[in-house]
Amino acid sequence: MLGICLENVRKRVPLVHNITNYVTVNDVANILLACGGSPIMSDEPEDVEDITSICGGLNINIGTLNKRSIEGMYRAGRKANELGHIVLLDPVGAGASALRTDTAVGLMKEIRFTVIRGNISEIKTLALGSGTTKGVDADVADAVTEETLDTAVAFVKKLAEKTDAIIAVTGAIDLVADHERCYVIRNGRPEMGRITGTGCQLSGMMTAFVTANPETKLKAAAAAVAAMGLAGEIGWSRMQAGDGNSTYRNRIIDAIYNMDKETLDQGARFEIR
Amino acid sequence: MLGICLENVRKRVPLVHNITNYVTVNDVANILLACGGSPIMSDEPEDVEDITSICGGLNINIGTLNKRSIEGMYRAGRKANELGHIVLLDPVGAGASALRTDTAVGLMKEIRFTVIRGNISEIKTLALGSGTTKGVDADVADAVTEETLDTAVAFVKKLAEKTDAIIAVTGAIDLVADHERCYVIRNGRPEMGRITGTGCQLSGMMTAFVTANPETKLKAAAAAVAAMGLAGEIGWSRMQAGDGNSTYRNRIIDAIYNMDKETLDQGARFEIR
Amino acid sequence: MLGICLENVRKRVPLVHNITNYVTVNDVANILLACGGSPIMSDEPEDVEDITSICGGLNINIGTLNKRSIEGMYRAGRKANELGHIVLLDPVGAGASALRTDTAVGLMKEIRFTVIRGNISEIKTLALGSGTTKGVDADVADAVTEETLDTAVAFVKKLAEKTDAIIAVTGAIDLVADHERCYVIRNGRPEMGRITGTGCQLSGMMTAFVTANPETKLKAAAAAVAAMGLAGEIGWSRMQAGDGNSTYRNRIIDAIYNMDKETLDQGARFEIR
Repeated sequence: MLGICLENVRKRVPLVHNITNYVTVNDVANILLACGGSPIMSDEPEDVEDITSICGGLNINIGTLNKRSIEGMYRAGRKANELGHIVLLDPVGAGASALRTDTAVGLMKEIRFTVIRGNISEIKTLALGSGTTKGVDADVADAVTEETLDTAVAFVKKLAEKTDAIIAVTGAIDLVADHERCYVIRNGRPEMGRITGTGCQLSGMMTAFVTANPETKLKAAAAAVAAMGLAGEIGWSRMQAGDGNSTYRNRIIDAIYNMDKETLDQGARFEIR
Repeated sequence: MLGICLENVRKRVPLVHNITNYVTVNDVANILLACGGSPIMSDEPEDVEDITSICGGLNINIGTLNKRSIEGMYRAGRKANELGHIVLLDPVGAGASALRTDTAVGLMKEIRFTVIRGNISEIKTLALGSGTTKGVDADVADAVTEETLDTAVAFVKKLAEKTDAIIAVTGAIDLVADHERCYVIRNGRPEMGRITGTGCQLSGMMTAFVTANPETKLKAAAAAVAAMGLAGEIGWSRMQAGDGNSTYRNRIIDAIYNMDKETLDQGARFEIR
Repeated sequence: MLGICLENVRKRVPLVHNITNYVTVNDVANILLACGGSPIMSDEPEDVEDITSICGGLNINIGTLNKRSIEGMYRAGRKANELGHIVLLDPVGAGASALRTDTAVGLMKEIRFTVIRGNISEIKTLALGSGTTKGVDADVADAVTEETLDTAVAFVKKLAEKTDAIIAVTGAIDLVADHERCYVIRNGRPEMGRITGTGCQLSGMMTAFVTANPETKLKAAAAAVAAMGLAGEIGWSRMQAGDGNSTYRNRIIDAIYNMDKETLDQGARFEIR
């Protein structure tokens, strides 16, 4: 069911403009190529409008933001809105600093986002205008677990309604919701948290998925989450004695490169609530 | 025949100053080390003149350019010209935005480049002052193929004459020309286009090759292209079931690391027109 | 003996704020995760104080510095000092440009560093306020060898006394000293110099080690050096025909990921002078 969304990415080769942090940008570019998209990066305010105009989607990630790139985010976002493009926000570290919180909240006021994707701590910050973030990982106390699932599902649906955006919260259990339906996805492995940037990679890939599936945006966002988690499982199954997080990073991107419709359809584990 | 150029890189260990984009910079540094060169990166205007002064070559890549780094490109370029250093331009995304086109064209006016290397779309933009770029890849319609080869060879020779630079156009068939002779190189694999930055890596490595072979610059530039393509073939031959573009990236750099004169001499497939 | 320091990193999961160059930043993040730490990157002056406040350690690396990030280094450093955090300086390229030398020397005047780590050329620049740096590698003539060891040990102890910081000089033989004791460490492989950023990675990891071992800072800094060198040995032992520096980079980070107390205790080769 979700596999068709991947197939559409490979068929339509969406061009995605990324304003993203310099820590994980190379992996974001490679996973976009792996899934069938085409990446282009630009953060200079005087460059971003032209670049985003030739793309179909825009991925804004605020990790390693600076004053220049923040201006680039606003200008690219406005232009993308004007053109009716898909726009995704990854509020990396929202809650960890005033600048990050203010930038994420400010962007949400001025730009219409198609999707907002983060960990539960970041998403709560956006929702509550406060919160704490331990680095860029979610507080364990605020993790989405089987016990807290009902509340969490209600929370993301409500936020989706309030923001008129798809809300994707990733963690041990992933949630992808609009105001009515919430995909609860149980793919992935805990070891993915020992690699830098699996979240950033997912945001890039999700932008490509939603851009290539404009009629089924929610499903496409869920498909990207399931594909990433499944790649984590496939990549892990190929690990050998002595391999660690650096090799695991390569194997996950490789698994996306080799994933087809059938693999995703068979491997995706989700329910809709 | 081309292998001697690689041998000279390993013998002379050219120090290459790179002003390059943050997407692929790590791979550029590692491939420079793999081929026997020594990389140093700096883009701050107040730092670049000192840094380029201790180097032998300068690699200017305009991907992820910003106003600060553009100033750095001009200052480094002028200083490198003053010192008679090798200077290469990689006009990433020229044609995709006004800022990129203007920067590439402006640099060409003020800096004497030893080599200009890009895809056919970018090079046409420089030549024509216009054009369209799909992300950073060449338009398929403008690809260099066996059918369009004669015209393309004539075009690059003419541009080489006009700019007094070696022109390298890379794609399915690669062309490296001065105003008289054009190397037509048929190494490489299409899957290299699914890795981010093989072009950026080639630009870094080509700067090292030309710097280490000042008496045979055209041949050295062609040798770098053949070495990169051959590494793509060797790397691909080592791919295993389940491997994808992330592992392929590693294997290509590894193949450069292990390449010797004989391997390059035997594996290079080219003619001179 | 040194293994306990690694165990403490895994137990205490120190959060490390990195202001580091964009060339090797991804590897720095991944090796921090591999050793058990948690990385966060931020260089915007208006962001760094908040970010460093939630961390335990600060790693300042001046490679690819710019005027904005230099201001970020000062502001983060002052705040970290105010909070009594661990602060490390990696003076990449000090001696290669006036801006780098001035920045490193200026930071040392205003910020109290817990550790200063570099190659012998960079450290001599800091000590002498002059010197030459071939790119970011040490001059061969100034290498620490068995012949020059006594002088080098005396030099680092003296500099440690003068700066009131732990001084770590890495090369063929590594030295980690305070004013009284110097760890002389003989782990590692020469091929590590063919990978970009093993020094940067070590600086990130060393910040985590010292942060997680506040009562035994000198020993913790030495443990990080031994762990990095040992990972270079273990990673090399897993190399297969055709592998090169790109794969080697992955295997080193993987070896840190898999290293335990016993492996480090048994593999560390050092003496205290």
